[in-house]
Amino acid sequence: MPSPLNPNELRQLGFAGGLPSGRPVYRHLVSAIERGIVAGTLQSGRRLPAERQLAASLRVSRATIVAAYRELEARGLVRGYVGRGTYVSGPPDASGAPFAWRGKVAAAALRAASSATRDLVRVSTDPQLLSLAAGIPALDRFPFDAFRQALEKVVKKSASAVWGLGSSEGQPRLREAIAHRFGGSPENILVLAGAQQGLEVLARCLIDPGDTIVMDRPGYLGAIQTFRAAGARVIGWDILRHDLDELEDHLVRYRPKLMFTVTTFNNPTGWTMPLRLRRDVLALASRLRVPIIEDNTYGELHLTPTAPAPTLHSLDTQSIVIGLNSFSKMLSPGLRLGWIAAAPPIIEQLALMEPHSLAHNGGQLAVAELLENGAFDEHLVTLRAEHRRRRDALAAALHRHIPDGLLRWSTPDGGLYFWCRLGGRLQSARVSACALAEGVAFTPGEAFYVDHAGERELRICYSSVPAGRSDEAARRLGRAILRARRETSAPPQLVAIV
Amino acid sequence: MPSPLNPNELRQLGFAGGLPSGRPVYRHLVSAIERGIVAGTLQSGRRLPAERQLAASLRVSRATIVAAYRELEARGLVRGYVGRGTYVSGPPDASGAPFAWRGKVAAAALRAASSATRDLVRVSTDPQLLSLAAGIPALDRFPFDAFRQALEKVVKKSASAVWGLGSSEGQPRLREAIAHRFGGSPENILVLAGAQQGLEVLARCLIDPGDTIVMDRPGYLGAIQTFRAAGARVIGWDILRHDLDELEDHLVRYRPKLMFTVTTFNNPTGWTMPLRLRRDVLALASRLRVPIIEDNTYGELHLTPTAPAPTLHSLDTQSIVIGLNSFSKMLSPGLRLGWIAAAPPIIEQLALMEPHSLAHNGGQLAVAELLENGAFDEHLVTLRAEHRRRRDALAAALHRHIPDGLLRWSTPDGGLYFWCRLGGRLQSARVSACALAEGVAFTPGEAFYVDHAGERELRICYSSVPAGRSDEAARRLGRAILRARRETSAPPQLVAIV
Repeated sequence: MPSPLNPNELRQLGFAGGLPSGRPVYRHLVSAIERGIVAGTLQSGRRLPAERQLAASLRVSRATIVAAYRELEARGLVRGYVGRGTYVSGPPDASGAPFAWRGKVAAAALRAASSATRDLVRVSTDPQLLSLAAGIPALDRFPFDAFRQALEKVVKKSASAVWGLGSSEGQPRLREAIAHRFGGSPENILVLAGAQQGLEVLARCLIDPGDTIVMDRPGYLGAIQTFRAAGARVIGWDILRHDLDELEDHLVRYRPKLMFTVTTFNNPTGWTMPLRLRRDVLALASRLRVPIIEDNTYGELHLTPTAPAPTLHSLDTQSIVIGLNSFSKMLSPGLRLGWIAAAPPIIEQLALMEPHSLAHNGGQLAVAELLENGAFDEHLVTLRAEHRRRRDALAAALHRHIPDGLLRWSTPDGGLYFWCRLGGRLQSARVSACALAEGVAFTPGEAFYVDHAGERELRICYSSVPAGRSDEAARRLGRAILRARRETSAPPQLVAIV
Repeated sequence: MPSPLNPNELRQLGFAGGLPSGRPVYRHLVSAIERGIVAGTLQSGRRLPAERQLAASLRVSRATIVAAYRELEARGLVRGYVGRGTYVSGPPDASGAPFAWRGKVAAAALRAASSATRDLVRVSTDPQLLSLAAGIPALDRFPFDAFRQALEKVVKKSASAVWGLGSSEGQPRLREAIAHRFGGSPENILVLAGAQQGLEVLARCLIDPGDTIVMDRPGYLGAIQTFRAAGARVIGWDILRHDLDELEDHLVRYRPKLMFTVTTFNNPTGWTMPLRLRRDVLALASRLRVPIIEDNTYGELHLTPTAPAPTLHSLDTQSIVIGLNSFSKMLSPGLRLGWIAAAPPIIEQLALMEPHSLAHNGGQLAVAELLENGAFDEHLVTLRAEHRRRRDALAAALHRHIPDGLLRWSTPDGGLYFWCRLGGRLQSARVSACALAEGVAFTPGEAFYVDHAGERELRICYSSVPAGRSDEAARRLGRAILRARRETSAPPQLVAIV
């Protein structure tokens, strides 16, 4: 089997990527490969470089490579096999060829296939990296002993509930405990395997392809992906400007199916909606009959002594708000436990659609135990103190290691994130690549926007790194920023093929 | 607030449900209510009876009531509020009215809103019932001590893996252990929160609305619901006739996106596809480029000494088969743990779409431990012996308590079910209602058919009831069948309003 084509060979085919010529770069690439095939230099069965690798070598976006390969495929010159690569077409060898799965993937799945969350999980589970990317609380403060005792107790005492089929809405004991601790009534609560699963079932329950959703801009990237995957058009409401007229304009103009918002310690900005605006938003949504999904994942993670304003869900008298919440940030993402609080018809519809609860029974009962015996609230006190310490330590370290004017952020009163803006002409995607090379990860800003903005912004999770390591994290980030600045200000010819 | 209208009052409005007159019943109902509104007998704000309740009182199908209320709603005479009921229309009272969620539910969600699985979970978690409905293994044989020890060990030793963010594909240690025990390689395995979650992500990954799916007829009801919810048209391949020409005809004629099959101890029939047919099906699917999802949930639950034929997935050399499996029947449904074995492009696409694994980390690691230390295979030996005992005990009890000719079934060599056919003129829906009244539950046959067949068939799970209780279960079922027979042969006038 011939070796895959490498980028240098492409140059020999006459492809000079990135040079200005009035034609899009991908057309140059298509021409070069076509010439090679016609000339016989590229024989059938020859494998083309992987998209990602070629994009990196040529310093062009992956979309450019994808466009070129698609064009070649459409002309019948190459054939892509997912997971195996793209090959110069030749006489089909039906017997041994792997099945061409790519053509089978649903349009919505391809449309929604952003790798932002996937990358985030990947860098956060990579032991080589200091990750400030995913939103992870101070896990080393997790009440291990209390949880282990609770789990042992429920496994011993409620074996049939732990091992049997759980009821669709979740364990009654946990629904009771959640209602008691967070308000509402148990029959309005549906337990989930995390808030993200909640978004997915809500999207399936409520969104028809072509529906419009209005949500925070910038806003939770998991929500953007989920709504898009459901075929929705997503419109952003500028959460930092929080102009009620703009929201009304959106609701009237786009007649959205629903609105999604993180009202307290918004992800990624950390912004909290003031009480007065909460009432106004609720009245507006009620008047225009636009239901709201309110994600309150960060509501308990305040770093000031006073709790934030009441949620839209608690202010709502018409059941127009669906509350979404999760134990991932309050306890641990490994629990995979969250819940929806909603009007009975929604709970019933969701239970109908998702009759097998995906939340682990034992975990549900153990968390109920922690809520009941007070360990949960004790833990929150510890967690808030630790997060305050980490926030302040990381802020100080960033001030020490990053030259003035290259990174700005405001210090939030809660949640897990610094929402930052790069100075100079720095782009967060470039800085992110340099940061990974330096052994530190964050989340570039684009993932939080529905409209390709945010290229100079980035999100840093301050809670995932112990205070003792924040200096190292900031040092690496500082090096990455300086490296990105050098590359950014380098003469343009270096951007051509190396 | 006036009390809800009751069925007797409807009769006073001149509605005589069910009487033959050449007009559909729902039209009579619409006319009666309309007359009442025009005459002022039914004032605005008056609540109509709940659909389900009215259907039961009038002995008509719920669909009839739904049709009548829809018609009244379309004419502006009544207004339905999900969860609150249907009201005679009046001047709108905007302030206190609950939000009308019904209009917000997505078309696909409504289309797919069969309550079959939901009812199944409900009756199986109802302590008042002896349930032969859901497919539950002998849970009292679950290796409690081994699992508890395994869980304690991983919680102590791998705290960060248990509490942290899990990798999208699942815990590497479990993927290794699964590959080692069930074949394949770890990188082709994606861990799931149960096989049902697997079907849901596969549906989202592969199905575009309007696609056709070919699957077993009768076949797994969760698959029918999931594919329909994804907007697919579902075509059945008669699994008991298993005519390869019929399958080829379906694949050629409908050009399905994929085929779904439970090849071993098929749910609900217990049928196992012979090796020769497996090869033929695989060759056919390969020739026509139709990928297969093979659900092997019951493959290890054989009750004869020899293991069943190799799976399609293991015979497949082209990665055209996606294997789906679950620990729900081998260990416990409360674990919420299953997996997909597929070609790398599918695994990658699924990880992209579902980056946050929904499977509990601790459960994953504990099961890996059981697979590694041999406790899993020891347990299977115990479980098979217990299931054989329960199968034989329930079969004997059914023979004792059910009069000849009223229930026939064949005895399967594995899996969890008797697939039964009612004698006389008995309908399984009617018998099911009587059975619930007698305190026993099973699954009526219609839920396993995509084409409204199966009304005289039913599925009984023989593994969920200990041998000591099978006599009681069969006695209740016998009473239910006799009761249904009395009702079925009762004179027709009793079907009118009581």
